[in-house]
Amino acid sequence: MTSPERFAALWGSLSPIGQAGDDGGYLRHSWTDTDLVCREWFVEEALDRDLEVEIDRNGNLWAWWGEPEQEGAVVTGSHLDSVPHGGAYDGPLGVVSGLLAVDRLRERGVRPIRPIAVVVFTEEEGARFGVPCLGSRLMTGAFDAAAALRLRDRDGVWLADAIGRAGLDPDRLGPDPERLARIGAFVELHVEQGRALDHLNAPVGVASAIWPHGRYRFDFTGEGNHAGTTRMSDRHDPMLTLAHTVVATDEAARTHGAHATVGRVEAAPNATNAIAARASAWLDARAADGETLQKLVDSIRERAEKRARMDGTHVTMTAESITGEVGFTGEVSKLAALELGAPVLPTGAGHDAGVLSGHVDTAMLFVRNPTGISHAPQESASAADCSIGVEKLTDLLARLCR
Amino acid sequence: MTSPERFAALWGSLSPIGQAGDDGGYLRHSWTDTDLVCREWFVEEALDRDLEVEIDRNGNLWAWWGEPEQEGAVVTGSHLDSVPHGGAYDGPLGVVSGLLAVDRLRERGVRPIRPIAVVVFTEEEGARFGVPCLGSRLMTGAFDAAAALRLRDRDGVWLADAIGRAGLDPDRLGPDPERLARIGAFVELHVEQGRALDHLNAPVGVASAIWPHGRYRFDFTGEGNHAGTTRMSDRHDPMLTLAHTVVATDEAARTHGAHATVGRVEAAPNATNAIAARASAWLDARAADGETLQKLVDSIRERAEKRARMDGTHVTMTAESITGEVGFTGEVSKLAALELGAPVLPTGAGHDAGVLSGHVDTAMLFVRNPTGISHAPQESASAADCSIGVEKLTDLLARLCR
Repeated sequence: MTSPERFAALWGSLSPIGQAGDDGGYLRHSWTDTDLVCREWFVEEALDRDLEVEIDRNGNLWAWWGEPEQEGAVVTGSHLDSVPHGGAYDGPLGVVSGLLAVDRLRERGVRPIRPIAVVVFTEEEGARFGVPCLGSRLMTGAFDAAAALRLRDRDGVWLADAIGRAGLDPDRLGPDPERLARIGAFVELHVEQGRALDHLNAPVGVASAIWPHGRYRFDFTGEGNHAGTTRMSDRHDPMLTLAHTVVATDEAARTHGAHATVGRVEAAPNATNAIAARASAWLDARAADGETLQKLVDSIRERAEKRARMDGTHVTMTAESITGEVGFTGEVSKLAALELGAPVLPTGAGHDAGVLSGHVDTAMLFVRNPTGISHAPQESASAADCSIGVEKLTDLLARLCR
Repeated sequence: MTSPERFAALWGSLSPIGQAGDDGGYLRHSWTDTDLVCREWFVEEALDRDLEVEIDRNGNLWAWWGEPEQEGAVVTGSHLDSVPHGGAYDGPLGVVSGLLAVDRLRERGVRPIRPIAVVVFTEEEGARFGVPCLGSRLMTGAFDAAAALRLRDRDGVWLADAIGRAGLDPDRLGPDPERLARIGAFVELHVEQGRALDHLNAPVGVASAIWPHGRYRFDFTGEGNHAGTTRMSDRHDPMLTLAHTVVATDEAARTHGAHATVGRVEAAPNATNAIAARASAWLDARAADGETLQKLVDSIRERAEKRARMDGTHVTMTAESITGEVGFTGEVSKLAALELGAPVLPTGAGHDAGVLSGHVDTAMLFVRNPTGISHAPQESASAADCSIGVEKLTDLLARLCR
């Protein structure tokens, strides 16, 4: 058994990296100095365990027990990057649990007949370059390498420069079908992003599906002008259209039984005494099925366009990423549900496991989060639950690697 | 007569400084490198005219024709700082016109019996440190020096450090009653921030009053959470309260026959896939009288608070600056209206002239702006109108300095 103390010891070696002073949230954006320190931490932990470390063409890190070139590998892992001021567990819990599961398999005397790897996917949150699960999407070909080279962060830094600085060759970004074909099973352990397990009084759960998910940017343009002297009737204020779009987003989500959020906004010139000339809002929309998602997004776009006509402004909507529904229906997922005695539940959150599931037999495990809060510092999981998560992951890997 | 060509020549020596490449707007925030170049430009132009240049304790620049220590000075001028991506004329037109008026007075052979000065007030827009007319307010004591030392810009730079870097002593900020007492008349020429003169087919106008004006910051707090997994009914989304407050602002302004604007917003963590934990909106509110302004702001605050209760969020409103109504009713203003044969009109925009009018006999002249747009790159004035503005200003100064 992995004791809570043993979990806490490894956890504690990672948790100070990238923690913000003000609210305890994390700033671990991919390819920043902080992210590089997190990646170094992983490499050192892997080498301490005599695992063979490699970085793939897309910047994902792999730590191998066994022969990387052999077919049918059993892979577990998650990501280390965070949303701005995100929680500690989203991502890192799966990486730490993967390393501890390797320790446990060895302690149990398991002799794998397939190679085992712990993986760290890069830019899972899309918090820096706007495309979530970028590392796994590039690997599977779900996101085009040429499009990736056109990505810039908020400060205007190109993805190519960010990864080049870390020693990666931007020209080598792209699909990695041989690597993908060698993976026999993928298991991602993740902190739950809701309170279902808490309500069920269960420390660990198994994922049934991921809701389809889209990210859209609304760009509003109007006429910048003086806030003090411009008559209300002469205005073309894009901030007003933006505000009505946020209101419409909330109403449409409730009407459609879905989730829709505007969590990011920008305005220009963003000055107190100037009517904005331009404003942008980012919509995150998710629903239980693709048809509902489409209706939801259509209704928000229509209301934005209608309001823009009233305000004499202009609005365009651009889909930044759209992910279809993922059902975890393969053998690995069935095995997990059967063997672990854990409840089965869907999630609204996207994951690298969702990207891989189209190519590899994949399962996800969730660890209870008593606050239910995610992408914020209040996200939590007890060391006791996390150590149970490690044991369940070990059980599953032990079955898969023999 | 100042020809349009002559106006354009001096204008053209200033206009390239701080112009943004993308939209042609100006980035001349006070005490930045760009602002220091603008200030150098002024010093050189003043010295070329054998004017005596001094910088006062609050960073305002003065160029003297005659003895600065003599009583009853006739002062004209405006400011050189801009809002982000502001227009070319707001501020600089008054400074350039002041320098050209000195040239014209000399050409006309006027021999002033009072000293004449061209002044450049600092941080008129409040675009960097949040307090408009900071230079003139500090001079008159309308804004406290201790409070000024607590001001920081958006990057966290203290005002004291910004002015210290430019060679000013922060400990000397504060009221300058002797300087103020020596000013006999102040005239500010400014581009019009509306289309009233265009409708009246007049190149120049005289100000009757400035509407009272307040700037208020609304801080909304909620609960940061995952955008994909948090049920709509479990949310406490401050962005939603912000959006309803923007809608309420527009409606309240129309109801009260006033002007109210949210042109600046911020959210945290400002990530697409996270429900915001905090958001802020800045309200700019103006009305024809103080009572209407108060009712307007009260009604917006009440609606924000009501909506916060519905959303399970929290809102606080902080007044960042409030300026009472200014009536230009003194002798200088009467003289301007009588002598210049120009229409008389009120304005919603604040000015250093408004701050000085409580202490000094003050007038304002406006130059026609055919687009009516202000605080944006489309702000305009023809060289022909600007040269008429210089002549009218010269006429008025000639009357005042004898």
